[in-house]
Amino acid sequence: MIIAEVPLKLTLFGEHAVVYEQPALAMAISEKMIIKVKSNEKMIIKSNSLSIKGIKVDLNDLKLESEETGKILSYVIGALSYFKEKKNALIEIESPVDPSVGLGTSAAVIVGIVSAYSRFLGYELTNEEIAKISHNIELSIQGIGSRMDTYTTALGGLIYFPKDGGYEILDQNLELTAGYIKRVTTTKDILKYVRNMKEKNFEIFNDIINTIGKITDKAKNLIKDGNEEELGNLMYINHGLLMSLGVTYPLVDNLVSTAKNLGIRGCKISGGGGGGAIICTNDVKAEILLNTIGARIINCKKSEHGVMIKEIN
Amino acid sequence: MIIAEVPLKLTLFGEHAVVYEQPALAMAISEKMIIKVKSNEKMIIKSNSLSIKGIKVDLNDLKLESEETGKILSYVIGALSYFKEKKNALIEIESPVDPSVGLGTSAAVIVGIVSAYSRFLGYELTNEEIAKISHNIELSIQGIGSRMDTYTTALGGLIYFPKDGGYEILDQNLELTAGYIKRVTTTKDILKYVRNMKEKNFEIFNDIINTIGKITDKAKNLIKDGNEEELGNLMYINHGLLMSLGVTYPLVDNLVSTAKNLGIRGCKISGGGGGGAIICTNDVKAEILLNTIGARIINCKKSEHGVMIKEIN
Repeated sequence: MIIAEVPLKLTLFGEHAVVYEQPALAMAISEKMIIKVKSNEKMIIKSNSLSIKGIKVDLNDLKLESEETGKILSYVIGALSYFKEKKNALIEIESPVDPSVGLGTSAAVIVGIVSAYSRFLGYELTNEEIAKISHNIELSIQGIGSRMDTYTTALGGLIYFPKDGGYEILDQNLELTAGYIKRVTTTKDILKYVRNMKEKNFEIFNDIINTIGKITDKAKNLIKDGNEEELGNLMYINHGLLMSLGVTYPLVDNLVSTAKNLGIRGCKISGGGGGGAIICTNDVKAEILLNTIGARIINCKKSEHGVMIKEIN
Repeated sequence: MIIAEVPLKLTLFGEHAVVYEQPALAMAISEKMIIKVKSNEKMIIKSNSLSIKGIKVDLNDLKLESEETGKILSYVIGALSYFKEKKNALIEIESPVDPSVGLGTSAAVIVGIVSAYSRFLGYELTNEEIAKISHNIELSIQGIGSRMDTYTTALGGLIYFPKDGGYEILDQNLELTAGYIKRVTTTKDILKYVRNMKEKNFEIFNDIINTIGKITDKAKNLIKDGNEEELGNLMYINHGLLMSLGVTYPLVDNLVSTAKNLGIRGCKISGGGGGGAIICTNDVKAEILLNTIGARIINCKKSEHGVMIKEIN
């Protein structure tokens, strides 16, 4: 049996702006997705945590018979179809968090399948190769997509993604308090709303996106300097800009604004918005505040390593 | 007896940015401040609505004996001291709203005193002259201050204040639903917070301020075109930018974000923030929403005319 352990990730700065070629900062965290692959008579994918029931997938005909199986399954199938060689397996996926809350579960599924299934077929890929392949798979499924999620979950650590490609792994640590609530809007609808805003208010939209890019660049330097106070301020500024883009949510706007009044150094949504993940600078008050809105607290200690592959005989 | 009726005002777009030489849009509304001046043995200023108890002011020595009498009284005294001629009077001030909620009460007090006391002394000033004198008085008291409040309350109507001076009165009407809550932060503290942000994040701050300026210019054109839907969108965008500047307040961020989810076309804070006035596009849902946070609804029908002076014998 092959087991891939994939860290999930938090977007620190640059969500949405990264779609429009601005830089981003993300960090792999200690919440891990587990993908197990073992020989089996038939090709079976199952997950108790991602609403994927045990289903049979015919790899010669990759169409889904039911839409209910959802987005995650389409990523599994997309990742499997990357491999020309086919070898039947039982693939189990265990996620510590709900999907689609901005923690990179979609990317982690792809990275995990690429990692475990490639090893199952006898290949030895580097984390860098896994990141690259996974990003291409994501692109082929979604049409668009930044490298942020696939690279962060594959490589681990705190990563800065510059405007013009490449990436820079930062040595520094960042202590956060984070949680998530259910999303009330789909990623698709949020991206559509943002695109619509771009069309109607082109110049204002570009200003906001560029400013988020500058905040991300400044945040990278503040992380290097260990200046948590100023970094926290940038989180609040960035949240307001995300509110301007229309991707935030009443309960969360209230929480972020309350966090500021409570003297928490920084707080913002993390990821696509419309509910989902929220990050604050590390503070016990932040955990209490997140609890008041029923958020599930996540283990957001930095994961130094990316996906890890184990073979168990 | 001389009676001056001064309309209060709502800032539509450009609050805070106007302090940093960006354009602004404001509208005189149907809530009126009443200033009455009549001959009296002594110089007495009284107001039942602005926490000014009946006090004696020696115009030869304009120092206040108590700080309790507050900001409004300092504006009254500042306005009176503009006149070299002294003639004792009983000055009564009635305000329909609480002071310091972003509705221009400070400016209205100055405009009202200048209007009524100048007539009491036998002068006939035009509204334009009243606006100019009042702005100068405001400047001499505050050190800084845009023309927005004094000009809007003196001249009436819906007024655009361009970057480079002057003003443009727009003929169009704008139907709003508005209310206010008590402010939890003083104007002084908010202005200090914003200045501090400018110092620490100079470029990002300028970006945000410039974007607010562009929003104001675009809003002016949308008002001219009668495009309420797009104007509403700009209100939400502007609110997010004000949140980025750190001048908003949890309950109000929640309200604005909820307004969007309820399908109200636009909503934002109006004025300095930290509580205070909130404007939405005209909508019965907005009135209900404002009621849920205990806001006092105000009559925000546009006032076509500015300050009006009546003589009653």
